[in-house]
Amino acid sequence: MEKWLESVYSDGSKFFVSNPLPKKGETIKILIRMYDTSPVKAVMLRTKLNGIETVLDMKKEFVEKGLVYYSAEITVYEDVLHYHFYIVTEDKIYFYNQKEIIDYMPAETYDFKILIDYNQPSWVKRSVFYQIFPERFFNGNTENDVKTGEYYFDGYPAVKIEDWNAEPKEYEESHCLDFYGGDLEGVKEKIPYLKELGVNAIYMNPIFYAATVHKYDCLDYFTVDPHFGGDKAFEELMDELHKNNMKLMLDVSINHTGTANRWFNKEGTFFDKSEGAYNNTDSKERCYYFFNEDNSYKAWFDVETLPTLNYTSEELRNIIYKGENSLVKKWLKPPYSIDGWRFDVADTMARNNEIQLHHKVWPEIRKSIKEEKPDAYIIGEDWSDHNEFLNGDEWDSAMNYFGFGRPLRSFLGETDFFMMRNPNLSKIKPKITAKNFASRIKEHLCRLPFVIQENQFNLFDSHDISRLHNNKEISFEEYRGAVIMLFTMIGTANIYYGDEAGIDGRLYTNEGCRYPMPWDKDIKSTEYYKLYSKLAHLKTSEEALQDGGFKVLSDEDYVFVYARFSKEDVFIVVFSADDMDRKVKIPVRIFGKSPEIKSTDIFGTELNFIVEKEDIYLKVKAHTSYLIKL
Amino acid sequence: MEKWLESVYSDGSKFFVSNPLPKKGETIKILIRMYDTSPVKAVMLRTKLNGIETVLDMKKEFVEKGLVYYSAEITVYEDVLHYHFYIVTEDKIYFYNQKEIIDYMPAETYDFKILIDYNQPSWVKRSVFYQIFPERFFNGNTENDVKTGEYYFDGYPAVKIEDWNAEPKEYEESHCLDFYGGDLEGVKEKIPYLKELGVNAIYMNPIFYAATVHKYDCLDYFTVDPHFGGDKAFEELMDELHKNNMKLMLDVSINHTGTANRWFNKEGTFFDKSEGAYNNTDSKERCYYFFNEDNSYKAWFDVETLPTLNYTSEELRNIIYKGENSLVKKWLKPPYSIDGWRFDVADTMARNNEIQLHHKVWPEIRKSIKEEKPDAYIIGEDWSDHNEFLNGDEWDSAMNYFGFGRPLRSFLGETDFFMMRNPNLSKIKPKITAKNFASRIKEHLCRLPFVIQENQFNLFDSHDISRLHNNKEISFEEYRGAVIMLFTMIGTANIYYGDEAGIDGRLYTNEGCRYPMPWDKDIKSTEYYKLYSKLAHLKTSEEALQDGGFKVLSDEDYVFVYARFSKEDVFIVVFSADDMDRKVKIPVRIFGKSPEIKSTDIFGTELNFIVEKEDIYLKVKAHTSYLIKL
Repeated sequence: MEKWLESVYSDGSKFFVSNPLPKKGETIKILIRMYDTSPVKAVMLRTKLNGIETVLDMKKEFVEKGLVYYSAEITVYEDVLHYHFYIVTEDKIYFYNQKEIIDYMPAETYDFKILIDYNQPSWVKRSVFYQIFPERFFNGNTENDVKTGEYYFDGYPAVKIEDWNAEPKEYEESHCLDFYGGDLEGVKEKIPYLKELGVNAIYMNPIFYAATVHKYDCLDYFTVDPHFGGDKAFEELMDELHKNNMKLMLDVSINHTGTANRWFNKEGTFFDKSEGAYNNTDSKERCYYFFNEDNSYKAWFDVETLPTLNYTSEELRNIIYKGENSLVKKWLKPPYSIDGWRFDVADTMARNNEIQLHHKVWPEIRKSIKEEKPDAYIIGEDWSDHNEFLNGDEWDSAMNYFGFGRPLRSFLGETDFFMMRNPNLSKIKPKITAKNFASRIKEHLCRLPFVIQENQFNLFDSHDISRLHNNKEISFEEYRGAVIMLFTMIGTANIYYGDEAGIDGRLYTNEGCRYPMPWDKDIKSTEYYKLYSKLAHLKTSEEALQDGGFKVLSDEDYVFVYARFSKEDVFIVVFSADDMDRKVKIPVRIFGKSPEIKSTDIFGTELNFIVEKEDIYLKVKAHTSYLIKL
Repeated sequence: MEKWLESVYSDGSKFFVSNPLPKKGETIKILIRMYDTSPVKAVMLRTKLNGIETVLDMKKEFVEKGLVYYSAEITVYEDVLHYHFYIVTEDKIYFYNQKEIIDYMPAETYDFKILIDYNQPSWVKRSVFYQIFPERFFNGNTENDVKTGEYYFDGYPAVKIEDWNAEPKEYEESHCLDFYGGDLEGVKEKIPYLKELGVNAIYMNPIFYAATVHKYDCLDYFTVDPHFGGDKAFEELMDELHKNNMKLMLDVSINHTGTANRWFNKEGTFFDKSEGAYNNTDSKERCYYFFNEDNSYKAWFDVETLPTLNYTSEELRNIIYKGENSLVKKWLKPPYSIDGWRFDVADTMARNNEIQLHHKVWPEIRKSIKEEKPDAYIIGEDWSDHNEFLNGDEWDSAMNYFGFGRPLRSFLGETDFFMMRNPNLSKIKPKITAKNFASRIKEHLCRLPFVIQENQFNLFDSHDISRLHNNKEISFEEYRGAVIMLFTMIGTANIYYGDEAGIDGRLYTNEGCRYPMPWDKDIKSTEYYKLYSKLAHLKTSEEALQDGGFKVLSDEDYVFVYARFSKEDVFIVVFSADDMDRKVKIPVRIFGKSPEIKSTDIFGTELNFIVEKEDIYLKVKAHTSYLIKL
């Protein structure tokens, strides 16, 4: 590739689009830049207008710091404007889309995309999320703790664990009924801690009234669990968060309920049997489920205790998301005013062998949410490729395992979560090269509109997967690279509670990643905390890490190098999972910067580099990562 | 890449899917094959079931001719089943999708796809189409010829061209009113000629009552032009075609009409002014168009003579495609019973700056057509990436310029049709390499379900683009390669009338590619005819070219090599646009064949080859193409 091509760049940010979130009928200006010495005869923007292939000449707009900017104006009328660029030299046409620069005509798969009339939750890209599994975070009120034997569920008694620091037992022993006493008062009390850490948003696992520890099988969508402090505690928590300019996204499963749910109420354990669909064929809730003549019913993954909700029912849609008093709307409204919804098992929602309503239901859910709160954040749980939901009319993002956590963990040599389950695959440790890592990251991002890229809910740990640092095969040095990447990738970063404390845990089971928060530990003096807090504060203060572009600079061997950058500031991330020392080229002129860097990176790590032909060549020590601000 | 990986193959054909066109609820078996010596520990099929990532173990089914076949069974419930394969060795997992074999987890963009409950026009893949521009094909009845001065249109008189062999004049002089006298009786008379050529389907340009030569601006959708012989001649033509087991696809523009159309009737030239929307604000046709208060109206590309039809109107939808007597249904029904529709400017249908109804209207049109004739063929005019219409619920294919004609012509060094129009681009001759050619071909195909790949309406010439052989910079030898590819690519082949005769023409204008058919010439003794007829008969008789798979074997330099193959037969296409002699490897063992070939190809061209390690190495002479049957 000719050297000048490395400087060609555009994206959907405010630095290259006059309004990244235009309304229908608006005229926007789109920019592209490259070295002002590039041997370019013409630059064009190739789009489709009402289906018609259209090529617009771009005019030279200005030159700045050695970079020339070309622009074209376009009035947007459709839901999506998609385009790529022609860069014309004396004897060649280069085609530039989100994925690559090639010398042949591309398909439109990787076109740049601008969404029209899209309600972006713009606060997300400026946020650092902290995920709280409330039962294990902090016990703010011992009065409301579950008492041992207080109730039975699925034949097992609820048990109060008296020692907060005891290791949670495996499911076979605990049955998800081992209560440590964490609650919403506890979360509220820890707001100063979170602020100090640099967090400004919370992703809260389920809190609705439920018998289990995880509460994904709630009994009542309209009541906060009394052991978490009830509605009142939640209201007070939300109030305190908002006073502190913090947001909260709430988790819920609307794909199915438990059989003990008030609407289903099979066993009559928590509600009188005169209530609920199972025992009352004439009940209004009967149509919320898929009942057969013999009172059998459709269940999630055929797990009999988790009956599937029936979205062919207009009544169900009303109570879940359409009505003013629906589940979805109730918690978005005052006095709670949550800022987003995370939907559990969203990938399989409203679909089964008989009906496929997902692309009907999700746009409706989005519409309901946005009516109530236009900047609410909507994410779905989906572990694999979920591109089909990210066109702007369904989800804003997903739990980004596919585009972030899974490739990242593979880059560090971990066996993929899904492959762990398969005996033929679990033995293979498919440590992927930097090139493959870059391909996986880009394949996900480059199909998305930029404003959707900015919404990416990046994470590598959660309540559903072993904590990365608990894998002793991964050194802290390599882990550092993963954390740096978490906070510097396009999108938002999610800290799973306790990661910043290097919390203990076991591998391979859910119980192993749900240890109670180690408040007894001197958290703030751990290396983990220093790393997380430094990065969290950077993320919430640096424009380049919020609104900036993203460009992969190098992906040789096992060293992945990319930049996040605004017009002024450039962050270079060097993430090595390599056993060898390597040398990487950092082309700084493409950002309008001169080839000078300090002697240390942001963390004080020494930088060993030379300058050659205006490029910086950095020596990258094995397994070492760097975060450099140019 | 390890050598054994070259043998890994699957597709959506009957050779690898027990039923390529399954119904909902059906259980199908999917196969994949590779060398039986491959160092494989396990093979798996990775799909999604109701949104859930699912990996099925595949079992060894049988070994045949050195190839081992693995299989998995799956019951299909959704509209599309999409999947890729895991091929597991001792220490690695390979991921195989329609595009490539890689060693990292792919996105789902290029997954294999099987459409459920899809009505494939299965005759298409077994067809050779012949495109007829009727006014210029054959004058079967001089009685119905247009007479000079018989009418005026747009201020110009219709003119009868007395000399059938006269070169058509440019538009500025002829105004598309220069009539040679071709008609449907003429087409009927030439059926024996077409059959002998090897043709079994006709793509017929518009025939409805219209003032111009091309008839895209018809006056009445419900009447065949009297100068073409009227409804009667069409009925007789269809009857004769069907008696000869030939199909016919008809061309129509339902995006707009002309201002002279009976429904619009602005000038009152052909119908009384008491009819039509323009002069009668209360007429039933008023809602078919977009009228403003001042009687101005929306027009295609703002060409005032071509008012756009208004698909927000339910009345229009009824008369165009929904009603039993609608345009679309009328001609599908007896006594005409056409076999397919080609929709003009389909890319921009039902959309403009105010409304975007295309993804609502196309599924409805498809439904209407399939109700009437389940195996009818539906294609849209779209010159660029039209993947969004090829999901099985809208078009079966498009005029395949994007995935075939455009890349092919670029491979031969021609400036792209769309680039011709732009002074900054027209001077660049972007002859693309075989690698880039392969990328363009594959980028299009690999996103499509196999049954849609089989529907591809491949063409390089048409009534809208200069004939390739009229470009004197392209030698007949290179042209041969293009024609061989036309008949051997997955999909169907369209011969534009006269190409088989090496018909004269001029470049760059529509008039230049609409010369009257040179019946005076000794067509059958031309090299063109011999080439086309040989290939047409092969296409209509060889299972491998109809139902077979497609695999690119080599794309070095300017030599493109691929195979079409059934379980028994393998065709190897070697298409060189290279100035140098080259050597290409043909791995025949991957098809279960032994490394032996005859001394000449299908056309008698000498084959100069050696066998090394069970592969054939063929010497490819500069600019020479070969069609080899193994």
